[in-house]
Amino acid sequence: MANTRRRKGFGRERMLARKLWEKGFAVLRAPASGAKARRLKYPDMVVLRNGHIIVLEIKTSEKQAPIYIPRQQVEKIREFARRAGGKAYIAVDYIGTGMGWRFIPIEELAETKRGNYRIDPDKAKNSPRIQDLIRATDKARPLDRWIQ
Amino acid sequence: MANTRRRKGFGRERMLARKLWEKGFAVLRAPASGAKARRLKYPDMVVLRNGHIIVLEIKTSEKQAPIYIPRQQVEKIREFARRAGGKAYIAVDYIGTGMGWRFIPIEELAETKRGNYRIDPDKAKNSPRIQDLIRATDKARPLDRWIQ
Repeated sequence: MANTRRRKGFGRERMLARKLWEKGFAVLRAPASGAKARRLKYPDMVVLRNGHIIVLEIKTSEKQAPIYIPRQQVEKIREFARRAGGKAYIAVDYIGTGMGWRFIPIEELAETKRGNYRIDPDKAKNSPRIQDLIRATDKARPLDRWIQ
Repeated sequence: MANTRRRKGFGRERMLARKLWEKGFAVLRAPASGAKARRLKYPDMVVLRNGHIIVLEIKTSEKQAPIYIPRQQVEKIREFARRAGGKAYIAVDYIGTGMGWRFIPIEELAETKRGNYRIDPDKAKNSPRIQDLIRATDKARPLDRWIQ
């Protein structure tokens, strides 16, 4: 059952990737399988547009309840975004609520007592949507110089 | 045998990814397998640093001979880089020559009579190395604005 849920999650993730591509983003998903060592460094998805870099970890939930995120998952995408010079979000899909995908900046995650992180449905509801990502990346990020 | 060669290529690709990570880049490799439809849109690797976006298609060769690249492979990474606001290269490893990885900007590829592309060993030898990528991405690409 966990496996079914996992596959369902991947299906939603693929749909998100396709939707973002249709909206004009360049999208690269991480390999679904692979050595654990590698997965510790990779985000689930990188989304690019006009020089803007968006680093995503993907979470789906079938009930309107808090979503818990292990500390190391957040640190993984924080480090990736730091290197990249981009911005890291948890992309959340509360399935069946009509809320649509929401993007919670990792700086805005609630911390649990044990040092992990939590997203409440209300927080998700007040977080950016795909439309907000489109608007924020409409303007080109300027190039200063490049390889000769 | 083709399969062995292919696996060897993946090994070199993984080594390149690891080396770039060690040099401070954020690196995401595309899923190695997957539906052909998806692979038509994905580059082999996206490399990010300080806001700079580098889109790569990877080629390895065990002999010092021209490398031919199908037109649609070049167009795939050109379109991906256009959306991303990044720069597309063919990353070439002429194995055993000591040349090291070379990065040929897609604008500089030679076109064949049939509309495909070609890289000659001499062209590779005069193209940027990893060190040049590092230098070119040392300075941060400025952020103009971001999601509120």
